[in-house]
Amino acid sequence: MSENNLSSITQFRVKFRECDPLKIVWHGNYLKYFEDAREDFCASHGFSYQDVMKLGYSTPIVKTNCEHKLPLHFGDKFEIETTFKPTAAAKMIFEYKVTKNDRVVCTGETIQVFLDVKGDLVLNNPPFFLERKSKMAIEK
Amino acid sequence: MSENNLSSITQFRVKFRECDPLKIVWHGNYLKYFEDAREDFCASHGFSYQDVMKLGYSTPIVKTNCEHKLPLHFGDKFEIETTFKPTAAAKMIFEYKVTKNDRVVCTGETIQVFLDVKGDLVLNNPPFFLERKSKMAIEK
Amino acid sequence: MSENNLSSITQFRVKFRECDPLKIVWHGNYLKYFEDAREDFCASHGFSYQDVMKLGYSTPIVKTNCEHKLPLHFGDKFEIETTFKPTAAAKMIFEYKVTKNDRVVCTGETIQVFLDVKGDLVLNNPPFFLERKSKMAIEK
Amino acid sequence: MSENNLSSITQFRVKFRECDPLKIVWHGNYLKYFEDAREDFCASHGFSYQDVMKLGYSTPIVKTNCEHKLPLHFGDKFEIETTFKPTAAAKMIFEYKVTKNDRVVCTGETIQVFLDVKGDLVLNNPPFFLERKSKMAIEK
Repeated sequence: MSENNLSSITQFRVKFRECDPLKIVWHGNYLKYFEDAREDFCASHGFSYQDVMKLGYSTPIVKTNCEHKLPLHFGDKFEIETTFKPTAAAKMIFEYKVTKNDRVVCTGETIQVFLDVKGDLVLNNPPFFLERKSKMAIEK
Repeated sequence: MSENNLSSITQFRVKFRECDPLKIVWHGNYLKYFEDAREDFCASHGFSYQDVMKLGYSTPIVKTNCEHKLPLHFGDKFEIETTFKPTAAAKMIFEYKVTKNDRVVCTGETIQVFLDVKGDLVLNNPPFFLERKSKMAIEK
Repeated sequence: MSENNLSSITQFRVKFRECDPLKIVWHGNYLKYFEDAREDFCASHGFSYQDVMKLGYSTPIVKTNCEHKLPLHFGDKFEIETTFKPTAAAKMIFEYKVTKNDRVVCTGETIQVFLDVKGDLVLNNPPFFLERKSKMAIEK
Repeated sequence: MSENNLSSITQFRVKFRECDPLKIVWHGNYLKYFEDAREDFCASHGFSYQDVMKLGYSTPIVKTNCEHKLPLHFGDKFEIETTFKPTAAAKMIFEYKVTKNDRVVCTGETIQVFLDVKGDLVLNNPPFFLERKSKMAIEK
């Protein structure tokens, strides 16, 4: 965890099977890393996928982007700083900064929406999420 | 499709992201190939995953094995011969032979059982499956 | 293949293992679909990953984005229209439109650069690529 | 690490994307878990994939098997006991026992061989591996 409560740091190590014949991490695997880093943040604030599901919501990804600056190789240790970007809309926006030895490897963003149990889009922030945001001292 | 109705042939081509830094298909990917080959066989006999689900069953894998003789490389064209192994038990047994230019690359086997909608093990062959086997001219 | 030579259409069907517990395609799998669709386009124009590698280049992804409008479920048939976006820079830009029954499921974009055998960034378009672009009747 | 030096214990937690529409871990993912557990064992004994590659060898999988007793669901915490099975042959044999709350979920085995830098099969145990085995107090 970093000093403020709107971002977290997760440590990773590149696995053999995550690398392609160019001996670098296959680009699609960064979305896995982002998910693990995001889950780390969310779990520490009490709104992991499972917490949210129990409350009757799902939070599908509606947008991702990823910008690669440097490759990662098999065995590389790296970290991801996940930052929650407050927004008034009924959305969760996260930014990711992947670094290795303090050099930026990749940056990215994901946006999630809330669906109710019937799978319908929730237009207003669910009560649990307002409460979570309030605990994170975010203006609603 | 091969000449008899208990086996089928599916064509494949190795994808970039399926290969690891040794530039060969990562071993775990063969279970994906097996699944695709098996689904090909099952769909052609009217008992694809979806057909079976609609009838209220699921067919989880309870056993797999895989023996590798030769590697596959990025871009390689290969085929899988999937063979249904009749058994009186309430199981589905499939054997796989992966070949490239008529040389055996890998062989494998999977065993599946039947679960009902409640997730309980079905001890006797479901009616739809007996009918399927009968159409394949297999002694029940 | 669509009518013009700067885009192609690839057919897909959602696989069981590509879906998550929400019973929809896990978002990260769209980058796999994009890769398959892109390879389809590139292979038909003579610059597949393998063609390019034989010429001494690799073309790593430096940027991806993906916007999801509708989910895809297990068994869904869908298609991707891949469009090559001409640019004077030493880059390959592709846009993707994923549709199911003519409804847009997802759109996305990928950007690739050229690296030489030593892994260094190639600042000018490689000769083979200028030739390919010329064949596609693209202003260099 | 367990009490003896021929086995190790690795802790896991089931990820969202590892589960399929049946809401259980897709069977092919167990080979990923086995790889992570095996790497854990090997790294702790100084012969991780990377250690071995630096010495000029690769250790491809030539055989896997996997027997499933119980499913794992999203969020489940489980552990794998990895056991090195000594053999005089130039092979590495590992057995895996996957348990959740002391109940056996799955058992499996993998067999690896040694290839030299040219990709040729190494018929005798490489010196580094004899040394490792000796440190593990295994009869050669």
